This record gives sequence, structure tokens and C-alpha cells, in this order.
Amino acid sequence: MRADSARTGPDRKAHALAKLQARYAEAWVASASAAGAPHMVPLSVAWDGRTMILSAGRRSLTARNIAATGKARLALGTTGDVVMIDACLEESVPLAGAPPELAQAFADQADWDPRNARDLPGASDGDYVYLRLLPERIQVWQNEREHPGRTIMRAGRWLA
Amino acid sequence: MRADSARTGPDRKAHALAKLQARYAEAWVASASAAGAPHMVPLSVAWDGRTMILSAGRRSLTARNIAATGKARLALGTTGDVVMIDACLEESVPLAGAPPELAQAFADQADWDPRNARDLPGASDGDYVYLRLLPERIQVWQNEREHPGRTIMRAGRWLA
Repeated sequence: MRADSARTGPDRKAHALAKLQARYAEAWVASASAAGAPHMVPLSVAWDGRTMILSAGRRSLTARNIAATGKARLALGTTGDVVMIDACLEESVPLAGAPPELAQAFADQADWDPRNARDLPGASDGDYVYLRLLPERIQVWQNEREHPGRTIMRAGRWLA
Repeated sequence: MRADSARTGPDRKAHALAKLQARYAEAWVASASAAGAPHMVPLSVAWDGRTMILSAGRRSLTARNIAATGKARLALGTTGDVVMIDACLEESVPLAGAPPELAQAFADQADWDPRNARDLPGASDGDYVYLRLLPERIQVWQNEREHPGRTIMRAGRWLA
């Protein structure tokens, strides 16, 4: 991108979708307790065309926070090339009862599979859950010049 | 780093300090409202050897959240090479009343200076404040093998 130009809305949407669809995609996942204690961890993210699928230990702070507040904010990319997503929890599905297509969608994109993860360090957080998150707002920017027009989804609807 | 090895505590401390001291350092800054709404933005960070200095609009969500809860969680690096810092607010200093050494410490490391930022987009958030954050816990890891030993500061004290 030229330093003096800003991408179009469709270009930004394509960039956001490319980040969400990338093999081994990872996001910074910010959540908060109901009392306002901030949390953030990097997690694998899978995209099914409509929702983002995460997996975390059932007793992890991330899973507990999102269950309590219904909210998460995810960042993909770098601090200089940002895809920022505000999302709400659509459903939390325990690993044991997860539909095979949900578990497979996650495993197909992520670099790990919670179905095979009993030995991973995260297993100490307890059984895994899948968290299905619905994007409500997506913003895409690289620098100040791209602040105008950075919102490409609002109230769950693509603007671009 | 070899895939089968884990860095020592001193190596991880050196890595964290290098990230904090880097010219133009930027962090993902997670905060939350007192009601548990998560927020996260990339911000410049300056390190004075003891505390992290951020600058944000006085009315930005980040400044308001940190003022309300006293807490932030900062990530430097990438999702595969993480420096994660839980911090508490030591002081919030309006730009207008900031000691010159505080403003200069920020300007010397960051790629922008809020004293010259009236025209930046963030200026619409109102006058800037400096937020001085004291690290309470620092964790450094790259992969599962590095989860053991990832905590290099606890309760504000370096362990390494």
C-alpha cells in the first residue's frame, strides 16, 4: 500500500476474510470478567464463513469470561496492520458433545485439535469447549490515513 | 530457538526488556469497563526501566477503562512469540500538566508525540493523557514447551 493512500472498503473486507481464512490463523482474544478484569491470550481461530470458532479450556479465564459477559474482542494481524473484531458469543459447546462438523471445521484450519489434546499444557484448564463467536463489528486499518472508513461491518452487517 | 528447547529465565527477561525498550515499540493493550466490556487497541509504549508509559485520548475507551478499573493487560510480539504483561495504573497525567521528563520519555521512544498531535485522528477523543503502568506479572513464551517457566515477574518482582 502506498503511504498516502487508503484501501477501499472491498479491499479491506477481502483482507479481513483472508486473515480469518488463513491456515493456522491466530488472534489476540481479549475478554473481561464481569467485574472488569481484562484478559487476553493468543488463540487459534477458525472461520466458517459466518462465525469464528475458538477452543479453550472450560475453566480457562477466556472461556469463563466469555461465558459470563457474552463478549470478546479479537485482533488479527500486527499492530501496524490491524483487523479488529468485536464479537458476541453465539454458543459454547463442550468437546464431548460437539457436533463432528464443528470439531472438524476447527481442526481443518487450526494447527491443533482439542480432540487430541489431553497431553497439552492447556488440558490442565479442564475439558475443552468450542466457542462460536458472531462478529458484530469489524474494523480494518494500517495507519492514521486509514482511520476513516475503517469500519467494514457494523451491527453484524457488512458495509463493504 | 530450537524447537525442542526452552529459553532460560534470564534469556526470557532479556527478551522482554528488549521488546519494551525497542524503538517504536507497540503493544496490544487490553482493558475492560467496570461492567466487563472488553476493549483492545494497539498503542505505542515507552519503558523507563520501571514503568510503561502509554498515551491515549482522555475520553478514549482505553483511558476511561484503565481509570475505572486500574488494570490493563499488554501483549508485545506476535501470537507465536509472546511477552504478556499484567499491569496496574500508577498514575494518569493530563498532557497539559505533564512533567517535561515524562513527555520526553514517551516522545523519545514512540514514533509520535502527543504534544504535536492536535491534528491526529485520535485528537477527536479529547486531550491526551499519559498513563503510567506498573507491571505486576510478566510472562514470556513461544510455544507449549515454554509454558513451564513462562512467568518471569510475579507481584511486581523479577523472578529471573
